[in-house]
Amino acid sequence: MNESEIRRIVQNTISSIKPDKSQMTLALAERLCDAVIAKAKQMGVKAVVCVSDAAGNPRLVKSMDDAYIASYDVAVNKAFTVVALKMSTLELKPLAQPGESLYGIQFTNGGKIVIFGGGDPLKDGNGRIVGGLGVSGGSEAEDSALSAYGRRYFETEI
Amino acid sequence: MNESEIRRIVQNTISSIKPDKSQMTLALAERLCDAVIAKAKQMGVKAVVCVSDAAGNPRLVKSMDDAYIASYDVAVNKAFTVVALKMSTLELKPLAQPGESLYGIQFTNGGKIVIFGGGDPLKDGNGRIVGGLGVSGGSEAEDSALSAYGRRYFETEI
Amino acid sequence: MNESEIRRIVQNTISSIKPDKSQMTLALAERLCDAVIAKAKQMGVKAVVCVSDAAGNPRLVKSMDDAYIASYDVAVNKAFTVVALKMSTLELKPLAQPGESLYGIQFTNGGKIVIFGGGDPLKDGNGRIVGGLGVSGGSEAEDSALSAYGRRYFETEI
Amino acid sequence: MNESEIRRIVQNTISSIKPDKSQMTLALAERLCDAVIAKAKQMGVKAVVCVSDAAGNPRLVKSMDDAYIASYDVAVNKAFTVVALKMSTLELKPLAQPGESLYGIQFTNGGKIVIFGGGDPLKDGNGRIVGGLGVSGGSEAEDSALSAYGRRYFETEI
Repeated sequence: MNESEIRRIVQNTISSIKPDKSQMTLALAERLCDAVIAKAKQMGVKAVVCVSDAAGNPRLVKSMDDAYIASYDVAVNKAFTVVALKMSTLELKPLAQPGESLYGIQFTNGGKIVIFGGGDPLKDGNGRIVGGLGVSGGSEAEDSALSAYGRRYFETEI
Repeated sequence: MNESEIRRIVQNTISSIKPDKSQMTLALAERLCDAVIAKAKQMGVKAVVCVSDAAGNPRLVKSMDDAYIASYDVAVNKAFTVVALKMSTLELKPLAQPGESLYGIQFTNGGKIVIFGGGDPLKDGNGRIVGGLGVSGGSEAEDSALSAYGRRYFETEI
Repeated sequence: MNESEIRRIVQNTISSIKPDKSQMTLALAERLCDAVIAKAKQMGVKAVVCVSDAAGNPRLVKSMDDAYIASYDVAVNKAFTVVALKMSTLELKPLAQPGESLYGIQFTNGGKIVIFGGGDPLKDGNGRIVGGLGVSGGSEAEDSALSAYGRRYFETEI
Repeated sequence: MNESEIRRIVQNTISSIKPDKSQMTLALAERLCDAVIAKAKQMGVKAVVCVSDAAGNPRLVKSMDDAYIASYDVAVNKAFTVVALKMSTLELKPLAQPGESLYGIQFTNGGKIVIFGGGDPLKDGNGRIVGGLGVSGGSEAEDSALSAYGRRYFETEI
């Protein structure tokens, strides 16, 4: 075996030792949150990032320096919304507009349902939702990109 | 030097002694609030005027005689909103309409986000937001004119 | 006329130039609030002072520099309580203890009833309640002393 | 100088380079929160730990695995309370009992005032409160011990 073959085998072995993702532990939430914050820094976004468990309760919330005060509630509520409705907040958005099928959901759940982008559900290897990710602080496009990045990161890199 | 030259020099000197605006003191809030109320009187508007600190907490609220009862909450919440989202409520307005990127923000933050004109953030000489101004009582155009007037007054006259 | 007659006439004249106190105007609220703040400074208390109208709605709220964040809600709610129940919050206090006749009032009115000292109703010359005064920031004894001072000031000095 | 002396000097030098603690940055909040969680693990407590800024807004919240769902609100509200009232929640506790001077404060501030142990204010080197620490999950004695530990850690170890 030459060096590059050894490297490949070692990498494969490491990546095959995936942690159990059936429960949203604090350790998993930390890894995900820190990856999203690193990405936000790259993009120049000052975000609040929340990771919730399968019940929508926050496991971890981090507010980057100089993030919007308003972003705390938004991030925590996004991480709840995606678990409570089993879809991203960007998917929910068109359904909750005036005249559409879920218009009103933003009023009936104690102000906890967010209907704009920046929240994504998190699934384990079996496609089961085990938590939610809420990002708030940039434009809707930036927050949506960050939560989608986080979802992919959770599903493929952790 | 004749008398009028001396007067001009003294006035210039006095106006150059600007107070420290890095903290929203009650004294600063009083000066701003009274200027806005004087302007409101000129315009025939009966307003509630609120000045908040950098965290969005009210430092001073004045309700002009015969102002709307509803204006108290609106003014206080405008002064919170502009700090919490770092923009005027007039800038926020289009973003929070149905279909737009922040539609729903008015429901997810405990009813404290106001999405029509009349609130402006207040910046110190270094461009840092040190407080917020909320005005409610007239038409949206009047309230917006008054909060924009107050922002300029805070930044140039105090 | 001897001296004492002159004095009496002057006093009568001065006291007859009292402002109309049947409505809690902003001007009246300002005079009262500033007197209470001056007294608080003397006592070394950093207070939030609220003056409400006869309906319990705030006409004026001032937060002295470095006052407690929590004092804002307390002062505003004291100024409401004294109008809503037509007694000082110190008089209300024993009635609202467990087992007493008004125990529970602190839960039934949307969290707006304060049951410790620092709030006093304000009466016009005819004994009619025209507003409320709420002070929060010092010890209960200090707040109570300040609101009692304010009530006397309103009734005798304005 | 031998190697061990050099090592000691280097360690002393490093530990004397204290970070600026006048603002509660996310980095400071992380160091404090992780120290409290490490201590909680030692004690066998499953806690939610919240670090707030000088306005009482959360900068960081971590929920240890299997913590009480109820502990999230309690920890966040403790971190608010200690900033809003400038005292630990253990110091507040006796003052808020029936008959005492602040009985009722737990009802008048939107349910955000916690009146049992587990919250401590955090001061910078100049004795100024720059944030709050809220711990919830164990017994009151355990939570109080953890928040007191965190306060000391913030003031002496960071």
